[in-house]
Amino acid sequence: MSHRIITISRELGCDGTTIGKKVAEKLGINCYDKEILDKIVEETGFSKDYVKEAGEYTHSILSAIFASRTNGPTNQDVIWSLQSNLILELAENESCVIVGRCADYILREHHDCIKVFIHANMDVREKRIAEKYGETKKSPKQRLKEKDKQRAAYYRFYTKTKWGQAQNYHITLDSGKLGIDKCVDIISELYRKL
Amino acid sequence: MSHRIITISRELGCDGTTIGKKVAEKLGINCYDKEILDKIVEETGFSKDYVKEAGEYTHSILSAIFASRTNGPTNQDVIWSLQSNLILELAENESCVIVGRCADYILREHHDCIKVFIHANMDVREKRIAEKYGETKKSPKQRLKEKDKQRAAYYRFYTKTKWGQAQNYHITLDSGKLGIDKCVDIISELYRKL
Repeated sequence: MSHRIITISRELGCDGTTIGKKVAEKLGINCYDKEILDKIVEETGFSKDYVKEAGEYTHSILSAIFASRTNGPTNQDVIWSLQSNLILELAENESCVIVGRCADYILREHHDCIKVFIHANMDVREKRIAEKYGETKKSPKQRLKEKDKQRAAYYRFYTKTKWGQAQNYHITLDSGKLGIDKCVDIISELYRKL
Repeated sequence: MSHRIITISRELGCDGTTIGKKVAEKLGINCYDKEILDKIVEETGFSKDYVKEAGEYTHSILSAIFASRTNGPTNQDVIWSLQSNLILELAENESCVIVGRCADYILREHHDCIKVFIHANMDVREKRIAEKYGETKKSPKQRLKEKDKQRAAYYRFYTKTKWGQAQNYHITLDSGKLGIDKCVDIISELYRKL
């Protein structure tokens, strides 16, 4: 039986994970986000914080390209390979929502996949991460810009395509303009009627 | 009174204009596409084909930057300025759908504007333009690649941002995957309920 998968790529601070969870709840299917992280932690023995960073961010595309691989794949390559296998396995076994971790690219050959990208403008995201993570030495804007850059570099290195480019997704939504509930409705409706 | 505007940016061959017209019809408002073109032809005396090309395409961002402006603005600059004024005037006067011509950027200060981008995969677009324009010496794929490049360069030069980057729009839709009617439904619903 073929399973229908929704992948949700998202910027930090735009409630992409919340949207993914609500969509899954509405549709009565599972949403995978931290579960993939936990599984990689379990299999590699790396710390949770390390896997969280190394599974979606890289400092620059050059640092990823020139990381020494003379003794085999880098830790990041190991994590990439593990998360790819986990995501392919999930898609093989059940209809579900998968948040982040380049699932849109990893499932590019999976024929029944709805690829979503969630974003919002900087003001909305700044407010959101300040509420969620509190204040740090760096301003929310600085933190978001760094994270966007690192996530884009990671995506570029492993997928050879551009993160956030509309053509890579079936639908992209501005959660700041549309609101969480409207995003959830549109995505759930697509899942049901497409 | 404030008017609600829908701007539809689109790739060639993905039925963006048809979607814009159907949305307008469903909502009982006007859709502006060729009307803007006709008005510029009337005001400048340039030919229709020339305005059609020069109002959305440029050969490369370098050719746009280095075009000689020693005797004043280029023809392309004149068309840009005219179409900007026309689009601002439309938004001032009525709720409507505006297709193409960087209206999303031109209306960046208009607070009640829903910015849409429509795209589709290459196979769908190739089929569509072969049906619509017939065969030429260049293959449909070549023609689309050239047009995408020229449209992106035009957009980049006049707006300083990236054409097709999800963050520039409130919603982007793959009309090949979703189908015309589903795109029309989603956009009309946003107009009504946002």
